[in-house]
This record gives sequence, C-alpha cells and structure tokens, in this order.
Amino acid sequence: MPDLRAIYDYIDTHQAEHVAKLQEFLRQPSVSAGEADDMRSCAELLRSYYAKLGCAEAEIVETDGHPGVWAFYDAGAEKTIVNYCMYDTMPVEAEDDWVMPPFDAQIVLGSSIGLANFPRVMVARGAYNSKGPYRAWLNALESIIAVAGKPPVNIMFVAEGEEELGSPHLKQVIDPYVDRLKQANAVLDLEAAQNQEGVVNVSLGYKGNVYFELECSSEIWGKGARRDVHASLRPILHNPAVHLAQAIASFFGSDGLTPAIKGLGEDIHPWPADLDLIRDLVDDRDFLKEFAEENDVIQWSGLTREDLTYRLFYGNNLNINGITSGYSGPGAKTVIPHKAICKVNIRLVPDQEPETVMAQVRDHLNNHGFADITIRAPESGRLASRNYAGYTWSKTNVNEPVVQAVLEVYRKHNIPVRIRPHSVGSEPKYLFNRPPLSLPMCLGGLGHGGRHHSANEYFVIEGNEKVGGLVDCEKSHVDILYNYAQC
Amino acid sequence: MPDLRAIYDYIDTHQAEHVAKLQEFLRQPSVSAGEADDMRSCAELLRSYYAKLGCAEAEIVETDGHPGVWAFYDAGAEKTIVNYCMYDTMPVEAEDDWVMPPFDAQIVLGSSIGLANFPRVMVARGAYNSKGPYRAWLNALESIIAVAGKPPVNIMFVAEGEEELGSPHLKQVIDPYVDRLKQANAVLDLEAAQNQEGVVNVSLGYKGNVYFELECSSEIWGKGARRDVHASLRPILHNPAVHLAQAIASFFGSDGLTPAIKGLGEDIHPWPADLDLIRDLVDDRDFLKEFAEENDVIQWSGLTREDLTYRLFYGNNLNINGITSGYSGPGAKTVIPHKAICKVNIRLVPDQEPETVMAQVRDHLNNHGFADITIRAPESGRLASRNYAGYTWSKTNVNEPVVQAVLEVYRKHNIPVRIRPHSVGSEPKYLFNRPPLSLPMCLGGLGHGGRHHSANEYFVIEGNEKVGGLVDCEKSHVDILYNYAQC
Repeated sequence: MPDLRAIYDYIDTHQAEHVAKLQEFLRQPSVSAGEADDMRSCAELLRSYYAKLGCAEAEIVETDGHPGVWAFYDAGAEKTIVNYCMYDTMPVEAEDDWVMPPFDAQIVLGSSIGLANFPRVMVARGAYNSKGPYRAWLNALESIIAVAGKPPVNIMFVAEGEEELGSPHLKQVIDPYVDRLKQANAVLDLEAAQNQEGVVNVSLGYKGNVYFELECSSEIWGKGARRDVHASLRPILHNPAVHLAQAIASFFGSDGLTPAIKGLGEDIHPWPADLDLIRDLVDDRDFLKEFAEENDVIQWSGLTREDLTYRLFYGNNLNINGITSGYSGPGAKTVIPHKAICKVNIRLVPDQEPETVMAQVRDHLNNHGFADITIRAPESGRLASRNYAGYTWSKTNVNEPVVQAVLEVYRKHNIPVRIRPHSVGSEPKYLFNRPPLSLPMCLGGLGHGGRHHSANEYFVIEGNEKVGGLVDCEKSHVDILYNYAQC
Repeated sequence: MPDLRAIYDYIDTHQAEHVAKLQEFLRQPSVSAGEADDMRSCAELLRSYYAKLGCAEAEIVETDGHPGVWAFYDAGAEKTIVNYCMYDTMPVEAEDDWVMPPFDAQIVLGSSIGLANFPRVMVARGAYNSKGPYRAWLNALESIIAVAGKPPVNIMFVAEGEEELGSPHLKQVIDPYVDRLKQANAVLDLEAAQNQEGVVNVSLGYKGNVYFELECSSEIWGKGARRDVHASLRPILHNPAVHLAQAIASFFGSDGLTPAIKGLGEDIHPWPADLDLIRDLVDDRDFLKEFAEENDVIQWSGLTREDLTYRLFYGNNLNINGITSGYSGPGAKTVIPHKAICKVNIRLVPDQEPETVMAQVRDHLNNHGFADITIRAPESGRLASRNYAGYTWSKTNVNEPVVQAVLEVYRKHNIPVRIRPHSVGSEPKYLFNRPPLSLPMCLGGLGHGGRHHSANEYFVIEGNEKVGGLVDCEKSHVDILYNYAQC
C-alpha cells in the first residue's frame, strides 16, 4: 500500500478545481422527468469524465429511454469493482422556495438555508442526490491517478439517467456487458454517507419499489360524463374523484396507515441478522430523532421505538404521492371531473416481489368495486410490458470484504457508525446483487448532504468537527478504495 | 301597445353592430377568479353601456370584492323591473381545447365545434354564461329606445362581478338601493333560454349553493411532516392525502353518490306544485335525454326516469369539484405530501339553509375522526365571517304576472315550453326574492348557447328552424318586455 499522504496533499491543493468540477456537473440540468436533450448532454459530459480519467472504454449506451454510460478502467489490478452512477435528478418545483437557482450550484452559508452548523454548502438540484457526491468520487479517482498513476482496482462504470423514474431501462444498459460484469468482485459506490451529526449509515441493501398511477376515468367506468361538466348535474351523475377517493380509502385501515390490501406484506421475511441490527438501532436514542429533525417531522405514527424502527425497515410502505382531479385553481368553479388520478408507490423488502405486489393491488381493486380503475406506469419511464415503474430489493451480508473495507475507514477516523439492515429507500442494485451477477455491494464515504427531493438540496463543502467537507469526502474515498484493494 | 314591427326592423338592420357589441363585451376578460384590473375594466364598460342607454343614474358600486354597477332608467312608466347582471365569467383552463382563443369572441361554423346544426356560433368564455345574452338584452333595449323613445317599464339595473365566486358581495351592491328596490314590481332577466332542440325551460327559482374547501394539513393534524418529505418514511408517517381521501369517502355511501352526512337533506321540503311539474317532466321523454346529449353523459346514476327527475330538482347535490395533493407532474416522484385540499359544493333547495348544511358537514367531520380538517371559503370571494362562499335558494309562483308575460311570448311563437320547479343550478336571486324585497321573478328569451364552464362555450348567432339566433333573441326580449308592461 502506497503512502496515501501524497494523494491527500493533491486533494488539498486542488480544492478550487474540485469545487468547479461539481459545479460544472450540477449546472448541466438532468431532470429525468424533464428534457431529453438535457439528459443526453449530461450523459455526454459524464462520458467525457470517464475518458479524461483514462478509461480505455467510455461509451454512451443507447436505451429505449435516456442513454446510459459504460466505461472501464483497466488498472491491471487483481480486483475489479463495479461502480454505479445515477446522473439524473428529481424535478424542481416552486423555484421560489430555493435560496439560489437550483441549477446555478452556488456555494452559500449554511445559515442561509437554516443550517448554521455548516460554514459552506453547495445548493443545487442533485447536489446530494447524487451528482455532487459522485463528482467528488471522480475527483478522488483523478487525484489517485495523478499521484499513483492508476487506481488500485479495475473499475467498471455503469451509469443510468432514469433512477428517479424507477430505472426502467437500467437492464438495457447492463445487458451488453453482463459477461464482463460477472468477472467483478463487488459493487462499491462512494459518496457522502454522514448525517448532520456526523454519524455514518451503512445500509446492507436497498428496498425495491413499485410506482404506478391509478386513473378513474368516466369513459372506462361507464358512468358520469365524457368531459368535465357543470356540477348542477351531480344529483344524478357519478363523480370519478369520489370513486378514486373511495378506492384510496379502501387501501388502508381506519388509521390511514396500515394497508388493507389482502396479502400485501404477508410475504415479508426479515433476515435473522437484521433483527439484531434493528435492536441495536432501537437502543440508539438518536436514530429516529435525527430522522425526525432532518425531515421536520411533527409526530411519528407508532407507539414505541421498537415498533417504529422495525416498521421503518420491514413495515409496509404503501404511499399516495399525489392526487389530481378536477378544478384546483382559485375561486369556486363547480364541475364534475371526468377523471381522477393518483400516484402510488410501494417499497419492497425480502421477499416481496413486484409482480406479486402489483397483482395484490389489482385483485384488491377488482374485489372492492374498483375493477374499472386503470393501473398504469407513469408516462416517463413506461415500459410496454408493465403497468408500473420500479424493481425489486437487494441485500448483502455485513461480513463481505467490500463492507468491511468501508467499516475499517470509519473505525480509523472514529466515525460513529450505524449499520442498517438496508436503506429505507430504493436503488436498482438488484441488477448487480440478485442473480445472475449476485455481487456483494457497499456504499460509503465521509461527508454530508440533504433535502434530496426537496427545495434547497445541499452538499456540505466545508464541514465542521463532526461532519466532513468535500476534501474529507474525497480522502475517505481514497482510503476505502485502497482498503478494499488490499483486504 | 305600439306596433313592434318598427323595433323588429331596427334589430334586423343593425345586426352587424349588435354582433360587434357582443364581441366588445366578450373581448374584455372578466374572470372573477382572475385579474382584478380586468374586472374593473369590465364594470366600467358595463356602466358606460347603461349611460349610453340613457340611464339617469349609472354608477360603479364599490364592494369588498370586485365592483358592482347600479343604473336606473326612469321611463315614467307604471311598472318597474329589477334587472340582474353577472358580468363575470368562469376561468379558462387548457386553451388548447378551444377552437378559437376564448377572449377573441370569433364567429365560427357550428360544425367546427361539433354542432353542425347551427350555421354560425360565437365562441368565447362568457359567450353563453352570461355576457353574450346580456349584451343581446342591452341591444334589444337600445333598439326599443331608438324607435319608441323609451322602454315601456322603468328599469333598475343591478350588476355584480362575483357570481362565479358565489356572489359574496352582491348584498353590498344591493344594500345602498334597498329602499329603491322595494318599489319594484318584479325581477325580469332576459337572455337565451332555448336548448339545442328549441325547447324553452322556465325555471321558477334557483337552487342555493355552498362552496368550500377542505384542507388536511400535517401542521394542524399534528401528524406527518411540516413539508413534503421523501416517501421512504411512509411506514411510520401519516399522509394527509390518505386522510383527506378517507374524509371524502366518509361523505358518501358505497355508491359514491348518496350522501352519508347526518341530517343532510332531511330538511328538504318540495313545494307541492313542484311535484306536479316534475310529473310533467317525467312524461317528457326528451327532458333527460337532452341533458345527457348536451353534457356528453355516459350513464345517469338512477334506475327510473321518475327517480332521476325528482333527484335532479330535489336530490342531494354533494359534489367534489377537485382534489389537489402532492406531486402531479410527470414521472415518478416519491413524496409524502404535507397537505391535501379538495373543493366541495352542495346546492340547496327548500328548506335547506347554508348555515345548517355547513354545521352538518362540520359535525360529520368531527364525529368521523376528521376534526383536524379545516373548512374554509375559497380564497377569492372569502368573507371573514364565513367558512363558505354561496347563498340560499329562491322560488317564485308560476301564476305571477312576470312569469305569465314570458310564457305568453312562447305561446305566440309556438315554442315548446318546459316549466321547471327551479333551475338545476344556482343564482343569487334570493337577495331579491326572499325577504325583505320578496319580489317575484322570471327569466326568459329565445336563443341558445351552451358549454358554460367548459371549453368552446358558445352562443348561437344564426339559428335554425328550431332555435333562434341573435336577432330572434333580441326580438323576444322586446316582446316579453311589452307583454309585462301591459299585463
């Protein structure tokens, strides 16, 4: 193992350039639900980054959706990692709520977005999820290569531009390279994993997710009118907005939380080791508290920390993301809407599989008087063969070398670590983690960001005594990579 | 009674000018839920019309909302009518759905909007509801005055710009003139009352209406988060969109139509004479059929014509006009919304009163686990003292001279007439019809328009063998006015 201090020095002295690289990447909008041209420009930019690193292969991978990117850095090393990138971001609503335009990627005082404990943060859509930390990882690699000539492992880069759409075409990105990917040893993704208190969360997998829309349309229902009509006819005309509200209500018990869909959740089988991890998290009094603070939570819905913690990882996650029907403008327009739509998602844990869950939803609707309601994938990311966007879960064992390589760096820096059974969110790692590739995987890195999917998404540039800034983030990536190469 | 032919001739020879007057009035936007400046410009335009007629009084009446207009034409006649005008219109959504821009007020072939039976129609927001027919009435008056020197009755004009908001300030328009209005004999409003088949509907009153919003907010509920947050927290976080859907579902029986709000509708007492009128309408096989055709109805919700017809006039009208919550854009954004809103209206018939109905809704919410849900009036037209927009019902007797004056003109022209117990819709005539003014009232006139509140709202300029055009509309107004003066 080389003396890493030369690489650290390189990172220290190139900080201004590294910040500029983040800004360049973030200023190229890449809202996957938005403009296709932007997405292609961002894919090209990313491809150029891989080429500049010195990848022998760096190519756009066409899909039926936004393009992917494949690259390979052959370091002649013993081990090979797969590195995943999502280069897309969430849309931006209500720009007014942002302190700076979300694609300007400016550095501001943390206090300007209510985070006085961070001297300097970068505010941008994608700053934290995930373009900011990803560009930090590329900065770390560039620093290694500048100093040591090459990285200590071979790297297969796989990037997609549709993660926020449910990764409908990631398989098309991977498929041409499946035989190559089988030769890899692990998936290693390095980003900024600390929370506001400096604690690092290591997630041993990801939930799956199915995302779909329900539409009640008068035309298909065979009731009501073909267009929005004056509400004076309401005494003798059915209303799709009411029908959809009834369908949504039928999904839940009276608490509005417990799913009432037959079979949903009965196939959940927690990994035995996860129950121990959950017990550890229950003992950690700050675990839920930090979640609550970061999300402006008023009150959790649960009686005990045990119950809340278990449910956060293995409870049902049937969510209504939005409802749209009829008139929503100012004033008092009276109409009977001719359609009503809601957006639904359900996250999946072992052993829930997408097709099973979708069939449970369809059966529920059919058996409760809602056979007319259409289930469909959202427009963007729609696959002809499916009525949902999304994918299944993925899991890895804590004893895998790639996990231990990450944990060792945290131990070295005395970083408090929380090991989670899996992320509370979703990433499409099943394509690497479940057969046929069956690769172990881990995600790690110092540094912090937040407010993904919300206004004033941020990435900490200058940290504090608990939380790493950009420089610490990049150095931790270097550490982890060398750790893994040598374990 | 003068020979009316000279007035008819005047109308015939001034058709181009009369069309231009309609266009002038319609090209001045007056969306009451929209721009205040537009509303004032339209009120000024209307005031100028009254002044040009020769009204001794023609003045803007300031209110806490959009301005009203008062004018008085003193013809030295025996009888005095009150004439009501709403100069406001519904908003315009989805301009793409219009064949012509909705404020261009162009004349197009009926076939261009799917109405091949009408040679020429004017397409505009407000073309039918109600600026088009109202300007036709002013054209008729101008013609009378040009030929006969003055109208055969005195006219008190009362105009408001907030009908589509539930007329929250009409009382402020009327109040300064109450003692004057008490001297009037009747309310007479002349417009275009024929349907597509040429049948005229005479409505002996109007339903009342209460319009309100329900908001479920995490903040007030004390559950969920203070802002929209990532849906990965859903297993342990309540969702206002679900809570509101449950509230909406609780309003109805499983048919989605029958209200389940305790007490709602128990105070409905049909006027005995109305039951006879309803029987006549049941015998008229075209009555519901025409409603269905004009509104692109797929299927009515009712088993028999008797049931449907009764309910159209005296059934409960609890409607959800729109629901808004969370993410409604493209793609698959996962969020837990922090608030959910729906717009509700309930029309009122004898003896339902607004305060009673609003209390029934509040009690229902409180008794079904929705005490947290806020009831409020829509932003536009909000009164500090009320949590709804709207007003009570109004009714008049078929034997009143003002009704008979209208019916006589239809008999003269062999126009098929349907007498309705009251309109299926609402107008704020209670201010004239219920104490203290207690005036009888009628609405009449040949001519036709449609699609109020929808795209391609139209007014027929050139009629066919069944339906009057603009010229016939104006002539019928002349007839009715002289009839009433002499009966």
